[in-house]
Amino acid sequence: MTGEGNGMDRDRVVRVGLLGFGTIGASVYRLIQKEHDRILEGTGVDLQVAKVLEIDATKVPAGAPEGLFTDDFSQIVDDPTIEIVVEVIGGTDAAFSFLDTAMRRGKNVVTANKQLLATRGEALFTLARDEKRHLRFEASVAGAIPIIKVMRESMIAAGLHTVYGIVNGTTNYILTHMYNDEGDYAEILARAQELGYAEADPTADVGGDDAAAKMAILASIAFHSRVTLRDVAFSGIENVTLADVRYAKDLGFVVKLVGAARLIEGGVSVRVFPALLPQEHPLAAIHGSNNAVFLQGEAIGEVMLMGPGAGGVPTATAVVSDIISIANTKDVGFLQSCSCYRSLGFYPAEEVESAFFIKMDVADQAGVLAQIASVFAEHSVSIARMIQKGRGDEAELVLITHPTRERDFSAAIEQTRGLVCCKSRPMTLRVL
Amino acid sequence: MTGEGNGMDRDRVVRVGLLGFGTIGASVYRLIQKEHDRILEGTGVDLQVAKVLEIDATKVPAGAPEGLFTDDFSQIVDDPTIEIVVEVIGGTDAAFSFLDTAMRRGKNVVTANKQLLATRGEALFTLARDEKRHLRFEASVAGAIPIIKVMRESMIAAGLHTVYGIVNGTTNYILTHMYNDEGDYAEILARAQELGYAEADPTADVGGDDAAAKMAILASIAFHSRVTLRDVAFSGIENVTLADVRYAKDLGFVVKLVGAARLIEGGVSVRVFPALLPQEHPLAAIHGSNNAVFLQGEAIGEVMLMGPGAGGVPTATAVVSDIISIANTKDVGFLQSCSCYRSLGFYPAEEVESAFFIKMDVADQAGVLAQIASVFAEHSVSIARMIQKGRGDEAELVLITHPTRERDFSAAIEQTRGLVCCKSRPMTLRVL
Repeated sequence: MTGEGNGMDRDRVVRVGLLGFGTIGASVYRLIQKEHDRILEGTGVDLQVAKVLEIDATKVPAGAPEGLFTDDFSQIVDDPTIEIVVEVIGGTDAAFSFLDTAMRRGKNVVTANKQLLATRGEALFTLARDEKRHLRFEASVAGAIPIIKVMRESMIAAGLHTVYGIVNGTTNYILTHMYNDEGDYAEILARAQELGYAEADPTADVGGDDAAAKMAILASIAFHSRVTLRDVAFSGIENVTLADVRYAKDLGFVVKLVGAARLIEGGVSVRVFPALLPQEHPLAAIHGSNNAVFLQGEAIGEVMLMGPGAGGVPTATAVVSDIISIANTKDVGFLQSCSCYRSLGFYPAEEVESAFFIKMDVADQAGVLAQIASVFAEHSVSIARMIQKGRGDEAELVLITHPTRERDFSAAIEQTRGLVCCKSRPMTLRVL
Repeated sequence: MTGEGNGMDRDRVVRVGLLGFGTIGASVYRLIQKEHDRILEGTGVDLQVAKVLEIDATKVPAGAPEGLFTDDFSQIVDDPTIEIVVEVIGGTDAAFSFLDTAMRRGKNVVTANKQLLATRGEALFTLARDEKRHLRFEASVAGAIPIIKVMRESMIAAGLHTVYGIVNGTTNYILTHMYNDEGDYAEILARAQELGYAEADPTADVGGDDAAAKMAILASIAFHSRVTLRDVAFSGIENVTLADVRYAKDLGFVVKLVGAARLIEGGVSVRVFPALLPQEHPLAAIHGSNNAVFLQGEAIGEVMLMGPGAGGVPTATAVVSDIISIANTKDVGFLQSCSCYRSLGFYPAEEVESAFFIKMDVADQAGVLAQIASVFAEHSVSIARMIQKGRGDEAELVLITHPTRERDFSAAIEQTRGLVCCKSRPMTLRVL
């Protein structure tokens, strides 16, 4: 008993209802068992998992304590001794309904559900405010990296204007191994699936959807204005070839799937795309399935956090920290409120400026570069670097532009398609 | 007025007394003015600097509001409307006395003073506990990087066992520019002094003292057991030559001043030393005056935070986040307590295992390597890699060992001094 020793009035029992016993749920349960005594000593919280909701009987472990598991949500929500409900079932409909009911019945809630927050977050945060309940979600973005707490509590006076994230481990794993020249996209995806770094159906990861949901959450916090999944323009890495990655490497760049949330002239811009990063950029050093979030703000310059972005145990540490944070903040404070206290407009996507990488199959003949450069010049697209590889029918032209508006760039690319020398639609990637 | 809009009962005036108006103090004052409205909207805290204690009249800015500045501490501590006292005067004696008095008089306190915490922290934390006051210190380590909050609040269930830190910007600036081959130690130190990255008297930075104080603070939090400055063995970078850095680079390493806090067999080991890091190590990518803290724990794997480690404005963001955190945690919670709830022993320094880099001036003659290897073998020091540079009198032998106990390594090095072939005391550096 250390309650007195460390200055706390008494140890406080906090009983949790856990919704879902999949990878994350089981990890949360086990981590709470394993760290119980250290958590008690360090925080004065006697943390107990009171009930676990799991409909799939095959997931209930042999030897589970009598009465711990239930397939009936009312056993959790009707139990007045349960203070906190932790949702780790995933999906959006049942999860929404459970969290909604739990908050209306006086529970504080913790969720790891990025899709839910990125699509129906506003309704949940409004309810949390009205019911004066905590709604915490550290585990929804970037696993063990405490980016939500850092942005909400430590960056209060940072003047954040830019958040770049590598927030999808599967795509970073694939791109890292492509960069190391260990195979092409399909080969490495297959290996990632074998090793458990990619799902059997990898669409949500490789297509950018997962990263877009996470960036919607991060942007909402950074800019204090609601961003939902449908506000995020995203593309994935399915069309990135080994040749593209090699050209980028030759030019001193690394290809990463990047989430980019920016405040531009008072408007919010949130996008996810495969991008070239200079090899010296801190995000270029994020390897394998790791995640990282890179923050820029008026007062802080640049701050980056990196770590494991997924996995049951790392994600469980985020859930536990949310539970303890709730147990430690009994008052109605700003952390019980949605961080979106204003409503900003969105900056038009076609006005955003980026530099671009372009790879074109070209006829290797005199005047090709002149023709292309002339089309680009018409649209104010200026070329910073160029390399031509191969000769004759195999010739490829690789260009890096200076920063240019999306609208002008698209128009220039469209116009090159009318040129005889350009044999197919160019591959284009943004440069961060 | 947004208090209702974001679910908070009312906006709450929080009045701060600021001790010191040097670089950090002035930055705290200006940041609070600049961000006042955003802080109010985001947190419901109407933050006001009520009084500034500054004894040096030349530091009081022209046009300062009437009555804001005082040279009398009692004007702050006797003012019942001041809730929080922020200490940014530095030094240990007056600062201790101010914080002690402030807490006894019912104030919560925030400090940026690493030397004070690393030498007299225990007395202050005990007082905070007894008086049920907050004592916050985010700004004492690594500037804008919220490492204290992350370790105390997010790593509760992480099972931390290792903290590596680049926590001194001056030395990292010097070593980065030496790595880039822009000059030797003396030249780059002189340039750093011109540019304001190093003090006129750089002893505390280049000698490792500053980093040692910060590592004492980080280790105390990570391992929940008090570590003071005198428990930290430290050495600096004064003897690291450009040649050493070049050899390290040839072998694939970067030289950094590293703080290493580890739990080894239940004992605490905290040291600061210049070390070789593999170029792929995340800490190897921390350039210039940036800081970074790299955490390893059972449940999190590896998490790293990087950012500006000093500078008035970045450091001020840490102070402001502490103030808001106090304003948001009115209950007696674990954050009001010292995190050191146990008292661990120290792991004997001579038992710690490290790999080593060794540079020796040798006579270039047959059998030199055999003689040296034989001495090493006697002490169980095994050689992993070797390069010899130069011939004749200019010959240098560079070795990297496998991990070996400090005691065995020291004995081996001592014995090589008796060898005819070894012309001077070898340069040795640890490898992380």
